[in-house]
This record gives sequence, structure tokens and C-alpha cells, in this order.
Amino acid sequence: MDMYFAPLACSLASRITAYEAGLPMRFVQVDMETKQTSEGDDFFALNAMGQVPTLRADDGTLLTENPVVLQFLADSKPESGLAPNGGMARYRLQQWLNFIATELHKAVFIPLLDPKATEDGKAYALSKAKRPLDRLQAHLDGREFLLDGFTVADAYLLAVLNWTRATTMNLAAWPAIATYYRTLLKRPAVAKAVAEEFALYKEEQARRQAA
Amino acid sequence: MDMYFAPLACSLASRITAYEAGLPMRFVQVDMETKQTSEGDDFFALNAMGQVPTLRADDGTLLTENPVVLQFLADSKPESGLAPNGGMARYRLQQWLNFIATELHKAVFIPLLDPKATEDGKAYALSKAKRPLDRLQAHLDGREFLLDGFTVADAYLLAVLNWTRATTMNLAAWPAIATYYRTLLKRPAVAKAVAEEFALYKEEQARRQAA
Repeated sequence: MDMYFAPLACSLASRITAYEAGLPMRFVQVDMETKQTSEGDDFFALNAMGQVPTLRADDGTLLTENPVVLQFLADSKPESGLAPNGGMARYRLQQWLNFIATELHKAVFIPLLDPKATEDGKAYALSKAKRPLDRLQAHLDGREFLLDGFTVADAYLLAVLNWTRATTMNLAAWPAIATYYRTLLKRPAVAKAVAEEFALYKEEQARRQAA
Repeated sequence: MDMYFAPLACSLASRITAYEAGLPMRFVQVDMETKQTSEGDDFFALNAMGQVPTLRADDGTLLTENPVVLQFLADSKPESGLAPNGGMARYRLQQWLNFIATELHKAVFIPLLDPKATEDGKAYALSKAKRPLDRLQAHLDGREFLLDGFTVADAYLLAVLNWTRATTMNLAAWPAIATYYRTLLKRPAVAKAVAEEFALYKEEQARRQAA
């Protein structure tokens, strides 16, 4: 499988998932400014939205949308337990994936991290953060994971919470979320994925400054 | 099953799905300003995010997040064909559900329809509309549905496109989307659901003006 990713983007969750499940994966880096892949291809030709993660499965099928890529990866190794394989637990997984994708990733962090968003736009996005973070705080209080064990929803939430480092947002107001985040960072697959992508991120920043 | 809804909100997709599948459903209206249900209950006690749709299944289980509620409804009547029951087609369904939820619903329409969003915030949201609508235009050109037949993803997209009526957005720039929307509005289940919710919406507006 080929995974098109950008360092520390939400595609980090796919790398974590691959490491957790022991899935063989070829990672292809995408420059999100130029939309060129490290192999010199126009990324828009692969994904008209220009978004990572984009997965090319072994049969050539292209998959997009983070919650879908993550479920596909988990389902390709069901014994990993990274996604419940049916019933109400699967709906609960999808509930958290959709909650993270809409309430946190899209409504809050995209504008906060977008250099093109105005101060006003960032303030509006921040005003949307309290209710979902309060909801998450209440759920995570006394829990180690979103569901009973580590799943792809935790991988996605970790990737999103990791963006707080690049914003003015302070998780101290939500201590259960802060503890959850710090604890997850110590998981071997998470620590390895974050360290590798942080190094790639620094390299990309250096290349851009040199250009 | 009990469906908590607000007239013409994205919960419209659940009503369409119930009518398409012939699912028995008790609809309970929620006032999204006061967050009170028509039965006098505090809606936040049912859903900490205060969002519709919220579904109470026959065994009392509460389900939230539109793409999840829609898949649960479709799966409760698999012979309806409203969701492929597995394999790549199911991932494709989820891809469209997540695309609609993030790129259109959350990134564009929530700020456009929010009286608290500034003009600047609305302009930022509008600037995010072109790429996903171009992507949708390319996909729908020559197609009647997002997948091979009508699914819950079409129900969701119809509910979102219906909001263009309340914005300055003009679908004329995306003719395949405009045709898709007009054609879907003629489906009996869609026409019935939209007409009923439009009447409820007008009643709610009248009550608010009288108060």
C-alpha cells in the first residue's frame, strides 16, 4: 500500500495505525504548498481535493477521507483490534471519528492553522472549541481511550490534539484531555510516528526557508 | 425509534431515509435556540453537543453524528439498499458522507448560516466552497446519484444543498449539482419530507416572531 502524507498532518494517524497493526506501507511525502509529491507527481491528479491521507491499496484503488482510510487500514488487519468489526461498537467508533473530523479538525483547527484565515476567523473558530472539548473532557475523565481499547479514533484524536502545539490553545482547561494526550504520546507506535514526522517536518521547514 | 430533529436541519436526511425505507419513526422536534424538545425536555441532557439528528433506538441506545445515524437507519433495513452492506462500496459511501460532513456542512454552511459569524467569517467559509463543489460537479456530471443507486449519502447531500436557498450561494456555476438537486427534490420520499419540514419551519418562525 502507498500512503500519501504530509508531516504532522492528520495523515499522522495512518502512520500510527500502520505501526500499531504492523502493516507494510510505502510512505510518499506531499508538499502541501506546491501539491507535488516527493516522486514529482501532481498530487491533484491523485486526489482532486489535494488532501492527505490518500491511500493507494494493493489493487490500485485510491481511498480518501481520513476516517475512511483509517477504517480501511484497521479492517485490513482485523486481529489488530484497531476497529471493532461490527455492531454498536463500530457505530461508536464512527461517532468519534465523525466528531473529531467535524467538531475539532474542520471547525476549529483548519482555520486556526490556516495562514489565510483572518484574526476574526480564528476567533470564530476558537469560539467553537469549548463545547466539543468539554464533551471530550467529560468522556475521557477516567478513561485511557475513546472506546475500550486503543483504536483508529485515538490515532486520529492524537494527530489533532498534537496541533495544539502550533496554536495558542491550552489544554490545561481540560485536564483529562491533556492527560490522555500525554499518555498516548508514550505508546511506542505513537512515539515513533511522531518523532519521525517531526524530523520530516523540520526538514521541510528548512527546505522552504532555504528556497 | 425516536428521532430528535429540527425543521430543515441536517436531520432532514434521517426523515428522508425513514420514508425511503418505510421505517416506523416517532419524530420529536427540538428548538435549536432554546435547546428544548417539544416534549419539554432539556435537549442537552440527551446530547451534550445539542445537535440533531439524535436517534433513540428501540432498545434505548442513543446515537449521534449524522453519518452514523444515517448508516444505522440504513442497516436496520438492509433490503432498502440505502447503504451498501460491505466491501469497497461501503467505504465509498463513507467517503461521501465524510466529504459532505466536513467540506460542505461544517466548513461552508455552518458559518454561512450562523447569525453569530461575522461577514469576514462568512467570506472565509465561501472561499472554501469552490474546491469541493468543483469536485462534486465533476463526479455528478452524467450521474443521478453519488453511488450507483439512491443512498443515505444522497439524502444527506440533499439536506445540505437545500440550505443554498437561505444563502447567497448560487448553484448555477455547478450545473450538474443544480440538476442533481432539482431531480432529487422530485423523489416522492424527498418531496414529502421537504414539504413537511418546510411547513414546520414556517410554524416555528411564526412562533418566534409572535414571542
